[in-house]
Amino acid sequence: MTAPFAVVDVIRTKRDGGELTGAQIDWVIDAYTRGAVAEEQMSALLMAIFLRGMSDRELVRWTMAMINSGERMDLSGLARPTVDKHSTGGVGDKITLPLAPLVAACGAVVPQLSGRGLGHTGGTLDKLEAIPGWRATLTSEEYLRQLHEVGAVVCAAGAALAPADRKLYALRDVTGTVDSIPLIASSIMSKKIAEGASALVLDVKVGSGAFMKDVATARTLAEAMVALGTAQGMRTVALLTAMDTPLGRAVGHALEVAEALDVLAGGGPPDVVELTLALAREMLDAAGLVDVDPAKALADGRAMDTWRRMIAAQGGDPDARLPRASEVHTVTAARAGVVTSVDAYPVGIASWRLGAGRARKEDPVSATAGVVVRARPGDRVTVGAPLLELHTDDPDRIELALATLEGAVTIGDAAQTLPLIVERVG
Amino acid sequence: MTAPFAVVDVIRTKRDGGELTGAQIDWVIDAYTRGAVAEEQMSALLMAIFLRGMSDRELVRWTMAMINSGERMDLSGLARPTVDKHSTGGVGDKITLPLAPLVAACGAVVPQLSGRGLGHTGGTLDKLEAIPGWRATLTSEEYLRQLHEVGAVVCAAGAALAPADRKLYALRDVTGTVDSIPLIASSIMSKKIAEGASALVLDVKVGSGAFMKDVATARTLAEAMVALGTAQGMRTVALLTAMDTPLGRAVGHALEVAEALDVLAGGGPPDVVELTLALAREMLDAAGLVDVDPAKALADGRAMDTWRRMIAAQGGDPDARLPRASEVHTVTAARAGVVTSVDAYPVGIASWRLGAGRARKEDPVSATAGVVVRARPGDRVTVGAPLLELHTDDPDRIELALATLEGAVTIGDAAQTLPLIVERVG
Repeated sequence: MTAPFAVVDVIRTKRDGGELTGAQIDWVIDAYTRGAVAEEQMSALLMAIFLRGMSDRELVRWTMAMINSGERMDLSGLARPTVDKHSTGGVGDKITLPLAPLVAACGAVVPQLSGRGLGHTGGTLDKLEAIPGWRATLTSEEYLRQLHEVGAVVCAAGAALAPADRKLYALRDVTGTVDSIPLIASSIMSKKIAEGASALVLDVKVGSGAFMKDVATARTLAEAMVALGTAQGMRTVALLTAMDTPLGRAVGHALEVAEALDVLAGGGPPDVVELTLALAREMLDAAGLVDVDPAKALADGRAMDTWRRMIAAQGGDPDARLPRASEVHTVTAARAGVVTSVDAYPVGIASWRLGAGRARKEDPVSATAGVVVRARPGDRVTVGAPLLELHTDDPDRIELALATLEGAVTIGDAAQTLPLIVERVG
Repeated sequence: MTAPFAVVDVIRTKRDGGELTGAQIDWVIDAYTRGAVAEEQMSALLMAIFLRGMSDRELVRWTMAMINSGERMDLSGLARPTVDKHSTGGVGDKITLPLAPLVAACGAVVPQLSGRGLGHTGGTLDKLEAIPGWRATLTSEEYLRQLHEVGAVVCAAGAALAPADRKLYALRDVTGTVDSIPLIASSIMSKKIAEGASALVLDVKVGSGAFMKDVATARTLAEAMVALGTAQGMRTVALLTAMDTPLGRAVGHALEVAEALDVLAGGGPPDVVELTLALAREMLDAAGLVDVDPAKALADGRAMDTWRRMIAAQGGDPDARLPRASEVHTVTAARAGVVTSVDAYPVGIASWRLGAGRARKEDPVSATAGVVVRARPGDRVTVGAPLLELHTDDPDRIELALATLEGAVTIGDAAQTLPLIVERVG
């Protein structure tokens, strides 16, 4: 059979600023997934898309073609409304951990297929794997049963879901074509739409520790994703939230699980609680559960109960002691004053270097490595007061992490703290 | 050993419109040639170069890095001045065939490493292979001996010459990154500089049958190549020449050799003679042989003598009968008048479809296939007069070729013929 299109013609059209037809998009995504379009041809097309952009029409079709490259799950058999959440990734972003059981405890079903960390932000699956016994991989039957019985699942996406995205993501990573709004939007939304939830809340991070460094770019991405979800009949809203400072105090897998447990127990850092509740309200609203107050479910222990059942259903022991690093190095204040900033990006990189991150997707991660932010913006410190704790099982890594953290914490006379929730798109 | 650069950083720099450093360029070309930079990474970089361009400084360094990927020949041991010629490719462009022996007969040495045809223009090696016995491949010793004894060689470039270009050319062909001025200029000039001639005359084709469709683009390419050659101490000039109409009457390998023999015998179509002499004068001038008249060497048979020795030295029989196609189909005039245009591009495609061209570089070509232009612009024709002859050994191909030629020849009341030599750059 002859191919209906020559891939070079498709590349040239986009290269020269033209619009691809729906049939060209369907064909090129399918042919690439099957291996009939070569990696070097797709990477040339991706670079052309990066530099020329995509029209709204192209973006919708590209995303649909990626969904159609695999299975689309059907969750319509569940009695309760389904709602999912996705974060574009930030430093110390453990919000999914308290949020999924909290929303499930309030009456919605949260089917979350999640990923692993690449770069300076950690992956939710890596965090949960710090819990002894917990496993990320479920069969379809286990997945559906857990949704039915517990109401919340956080697990690894199977190979059948948007396989085109899996190939494209790996290719973009090595060809300098990651930071493109249409490519990011289609990658996230193809998986989220294929998951089959009827509503979605997006947490689009903005700031030094996020992929989007400024509000305008973050807003453009949020609008593109909201439009894609809405076009597919999924109620979709997005919150733009600050990622200049790490979320909460803990950065690193076991450290973040411990902090999530504090939140589920009714405590935890105020910013983590605030964002968890804000996202929970959006999710419940999108699910049509407008009269439920998530703050109550957090306070009365229902969210913690659901967490325990969610962890246990995936083999984890909710009562197990979390692993702790053998080495802790403390960075202290050289002067007295008020902490004016704790820069999320170097803290993320330091955690990565201490062992929490991976350079290639095959690499293992350390569950115990990470950074604890002892003094947050606005905190008053004296000389010698602890600012950051570096946790690792490999003392050789401390020096490199310290080099990264040079200048990450600044101390002045007064701090100006920015709002956590910047904007709502939807 | 750790690579001194991350290829993704190099791609990102060019993607974002920055300038690559000399060290980055040297590294990426070398690493790609060695296979340490993957095809999909280089194709992303090529697309970024296509869309962002290259500075003059980048282009010089990129070309040098391609030369340094292989051997650079040393022709300084030859007693006579060396001068080469390169054409960017046109329909019916057999000029090298009479030109190389003519310039050698006038006292210069012409070392021409040539290529095969891809797309609608034929390759010089394919044309010469229509001569029974002639072979394109020579050892280094045979090559140097022939330069010394005959003064002219047209043969295949060895694998040792600019191997980076060989890989890049194949990659550009399948990734929509061919028509980029810096990529074309560096590809041509890396090979020509590595060949070691001390002077070079470029024939930059412009018009429907050429890769450059307009004079401005052709001039930009010519200027870039002249600057690259000059920077390497090679006397370099370029002629921009018309390629709206096929050169001469013959298009196709054996047909073009026959026409070249007519020119060497003192006859041949006026435009082929004019361009051959113009390029010969430029080459002799660049070689410092200013007092020699190539028209005389063509008229008195010295060019033909050198041709015969050049062909014989590579195993060819200069007296052998050239092969002829078994089928000849004539396209005739539907009305009387003056031929106003013979469009080079469809004639080139028709010749290709009749068997003269190849779709992939492994494909064989037919020596006999091609098109003879019986009526050129300015010729007066009656109804039924022959316009084009289609030559092929495969009658099934005629219909497809005829479809291509629809509208290729136009007949009106008066023709306006354009100058063959448009401009000189040097």
